[in-house]
Amino acid sequence: MSHTQETEKISWLADLYQRTNKNWFGLNHSSEASSTSNNVSESKKDNVADDTLIRKVAEMILDEFHLIGDSDNVKNTNTKLVNFTQPADLEKILKLEITKDGLTIKQLEDFCRQVIKYSVKTTHPHFYNQLYGGVDQFGVAGAWLTDALNTSQATYEIAPVFTLLERKIIEYCGSKCGWDLDKIDGIFSPGGSISNMYGMILARYNKFSDTKENGVRGLPRLVAFGSDSSHYSLSKSSIWMGHGTNSVVKVKTDDRGKMIPSELEKEIENTIKDGAVPFVVIATAGTTVLGAFDPIREVAAICAKYNIWLHVDAALGGTFLLSLKHRTLLDGIELADSVAWNLHKLAGAPLQCSLFLTRHCQLLQHCNSLNAEYIFQSDKYYDADYDLGDKSIQCGRKVDSLKAWLTLASRGEDEWEHLVDNIIQMNRYITDKLAHRPNFKLVLPQFEGSTVSFWYIPEKLRNQTHIDPATLHKVCPAIKSRMMSSGSLMIGYQPLTCKNLPNFFRLSLTCIPPATMEDMDFIVDEIERLGKDLEF
Amino acid sequence: MSHTQETEKISWLADLYQRTNKNWFGLNHSSEASSTSNNVSESKKDNVADDTLIRKVAEMILDEFHLIGDSDNVKNTNTKLVNFTQPADLEKILKLEITKDGLTIKQLEDFCRQVIKYSVKTTHPHFYNQLYGGVDQFGVAGAWLTDALNTSQATYEIAPVFTLLERKIIEYCGSKCGWDLDKIDGIFSPGGSISNMYGMILARYNKFSDTKENGVRGLPRLVAFGSDSSHYSLSKSSIWMGHGTNSVVKVKTDDRGKMIPSELEKEIENTIKDGAVPFVVIATAGTTVLGAFDPIREVAAICAKYNIWLHVDAALGGTFLLSLKHRTLLDGIELADSVAWNLHKLAGAPLQCSLFLTRHCQLLQHCNSLNAEYIFQSDKYYDADYDLGDKSIQCGRKVDSLKAWLTLASRGEDEWEHLVDNIIQMNRYITDKLAHRPNFKLVLPQFEGSTVSFWYIPEKLRNQTHIDPATLHKVCPAIKSRMMSSGSLMIGYQPLTCKNLPNFFRLSLTCIPPATMEDMDFIVDEIERLGKDLEF
Repeated sequence: MSHTQETEKISWLADLYQRTNKNWFGLNHSSEASSTSNNVSESKKDNVADDTLIRKVAEMILDEFHLIGDSDNVKNTNTKLVNFTQPADLEKILKLEITKDGLTIKQLEDFCRQVIKYSVKTTHPHFYNQLYGGVDQFGVAGAWLTDALNTSQATYEIAPVFTLLERKIIEYCGSKCGWDLDKIDGIFSPGGSISNMYGMILARYNKFSDTKENGVRGLPRLVAFGSDSSHYSLSKSSIWMGHGTNSVVKVKTDDRGKMIPSELEKEIENTIKDGAVPFVVIATAGTTVLGAFDPIREVAAICAKYNIWLHVDAALGGTFLLSLKHRTLLDGIELADSVAWNLHKLAGAPLQCSLFLTRHCQLLQHCNSLNAEYIFQSDKYYDADYDLGDKSIQCGRKVDSLKAWLTLASRGEDEWEHLVDNIIQMNRYITDKLAHRPNFKLVLPQFEGSTVSFWYIPEKLRNQTHIDPATLHKVCPAIKSRMMSSGSLMIGYQPLTCKNLPNFFRLSLTCIPPATMEDMDFIVDEIERLGKDLEF
Repeated sequence: MSHTQETEKISWLADLYQRTNKNWFGLNHSSEASSTSNNVSESKKDNVADDTLIRKVAEMILDEFHLIGDSDNVKNTNTKLVNFTQPADLEKILKLEITKDGLTIKQLEDFCRQVIKYSVKTTHPHFYNQLYGGVDQFGVAGAWLTDALNTSQATYEIAPVFTLLERKIIEYCGSKCGWDLDKIDGIFSPGGSISNMYGMILARYNKFSDTKENGVRGLPRLVAFGSDSSHYSLSKSSIWMGHGTNSVVKVKTDDRGKMIPSELEKEIENTIKDGAVPFVVIATAGTTVLGAFDPIREVAAICAKYNIWLHVDAALGGTFLLSLKHRTLLDGIELADSVAWNLHKLAGAPLQCSLFLTRHCQLLQHCNSLNAEYIFQSDKYYDADYDLGDKSIQCGRKVDSLKAWLTLASRGEDEWEHLVDNIIQMNRYITDKLAHRPNFKLVLPQFEGSTVSFWYIPEKLRNQTHIDPATLHKVCPAIKSRMMSSGSLMIGYQPLTCKNLPNFFRLSLTCIPPATMEDMDFIVDEIERLGKDLEF
């Protein structure tokens, strides 16, 4: 490069900083290249300037967090959970074009305020719409630090602290499954669906390790079993794994939505008779719609009899393992070969924070490793057994361990026990309440875990001797639409085709923020308020 | 629930707040249940209290960001890029036990300071160790807001703003590939490996849509083609997809690490002769080690001839599409059927921010959708075509769209062009410099993209007529170990077995922070300093 070229280069880079008035990461440096403002006091050197987007956003969240979530009783606040706007209208409000000249800090700040305004405030105490809910200061602090430190969970070299944290969380959560410490292995994955796929992949490799090199072509048909209420990720995984949706058998559930062990055994026998190979049973601890817990111990006995891998999808229900009192919901989990457990659901770690756990250490490494020499070098200056990356289907992998650790370690085991027990208390409280209200009908007489499902029966329907399911089906969408307009409450609804049930509400309780009886009262009253003049 | 039970419940919840002195999310409320401190001024109502972890962490990052990254010339600072500590020692320093009682804010704050101290500062100007690098205030602001709003990218209902943002980014990046706007589709995925797997899955479905239901069992062997320098995710995907590693053909590359089209055609012919079916070719735009760009246009012509899906792994190189001058590196990308492009690599969006893009709209939906009724209800109060979730292999999915949008839109197209061009300028500058230093040897005479690879030749070896490769192989690990001890610089190294090359350094340039000539000078000088007394 000639001297002229060098000068040219320096000039455009300086220009880049000056033109945009954005010194690097907004740092207030007194050095020539990175600061153009003269009012930087010495004491502010190395501080992020007051007028940077990152500081503005931090202030927005810290100083006005009632915009995002408010733990105070909603009666004391006018905060709306949601400002619902139709997609086409919202597209017009948000100006999303990426321009030649970029945006000023002021424009970006205004944009971020709109992002908050039109986003759903999931930390609001009346958000019960998904299987996850709010976050707290500990999880978010962990997420913020992780974002700023921006690294990948691939090797100890680039993520020393996070690697140790991931190992610790895996050990801790594996031990909550009742497994021996020296057998526990696992990995953080991007969500419950992929954690379930890890379980299916490991099950396949365990039975046919040759598939790693040669695939499934020469093998008999490989069949996975889940209940008819299991998560759709079993079928999506089966597509990706090259088995297809037809190789997932949906086992019948009982009235409460739990897999019937005798039905499982019957399906396994039929599969074997067909010449196919049952390679994995997925029991669910907390089904998506009814929140039901399959009888793990009985399912495990059948798996043992037929030598089938048992994976437990505890994406939802895993967090009950933190309560000595309620961990019985997952009775028999120590017999599982692998488990999926999402800390971003009930435990309120920021999305995503999903664990895949197994009691077969080394298997994950054997199944997935390819020893890529550019990243998992054999001549490292530290013990490369600490590197987690080669166990993973990912290469770069987002760090989820710090927020998980801060979520769990900050409050400690006693407080977590309280938080989990509170879910059950609130479940019982609202179930009892709904049972005694004439315009509500429970889908089940009682609910075991974090989910409570019910119908609202508008007055006109209530007086009919036979309620038409097709009419009842329309009630939830109508009330939901009103919820979204009022911005007061969000609860999901869905039908349950496998049980022939028309649309009903699914209330999802989470640990964070902990629901109160006042919250439960509000839900019932608010649905009544929204539904009372429905013309059905 | 009896009245006694209710009272009991209220008392433990109040106790929970009081005992831990943590009101919810650290909000300063004057209400009884959520605040125990009396020194909360009225003006502070709804603010996050000064003594909460989230505020402490925000201050740590904003006020002391030189701990994390410093754009100023390193000569002006004593900031270490890394405080390397052996795993077993670091385990002792960090106390990672999850206790019964939890931790105080002070203990948590101290812990977070240790997390920073012992983590790698990837935003430091001398971090060149991975294919990603630093972050800036825009990306981090987006990540922080995303963390606090804690939702999933599954439906418009729970992520209205983020859904529109994801659609916009897909449209924008797809148009940078040169595709028609009305054909573009895609999805944010958790990293380049999974984006590549999306491409392979779509290619398989495109040729054999029946695999969705019936898997690959009845089919001939399905073969994927990548170069011998392609990423290992091709093989990992092949394992998970049920094809096995033996169904990935590694096509020979030329001296510069580029796939040789005639070799590709030969391999395709051989595969067909074997009775197997070539279903996807993966061209790489920016290989992992040499940063080489496969000749996409020529590869595309072969794909067209044999009717094979062309996926381009532009996880690394995609960002060159933001430069009118250098987008020619990906000449022919408009012919690709699908593309993987990681904005968290060169473009510096916080990890993870990976796009899977295709010009076959609807195919992703057809391939992956299962229409789960509990989440993708048909009776929604808005146009459910906006929902992105059913295209995905995930169910809950982390929001990556806001940080991507803020990364791109904040600076604007002109500035991005400068930032990308700067990579090439720095590449040429350091390549030229290394070529003229007697104790360095370039792996290639020149490098096209963001990677510059070279050996350091210690004095003793330099004077030998024949340099023993086995000895040269030991130089990088020795210098790397010294880099880590001094904490001054991080550059990765690896061998390249397919070319019979012993360990060499791989310098990875990224847009953020933009490297300067001073940085390049520092790298060369520092390696000389660290290596000069090596006893080889």
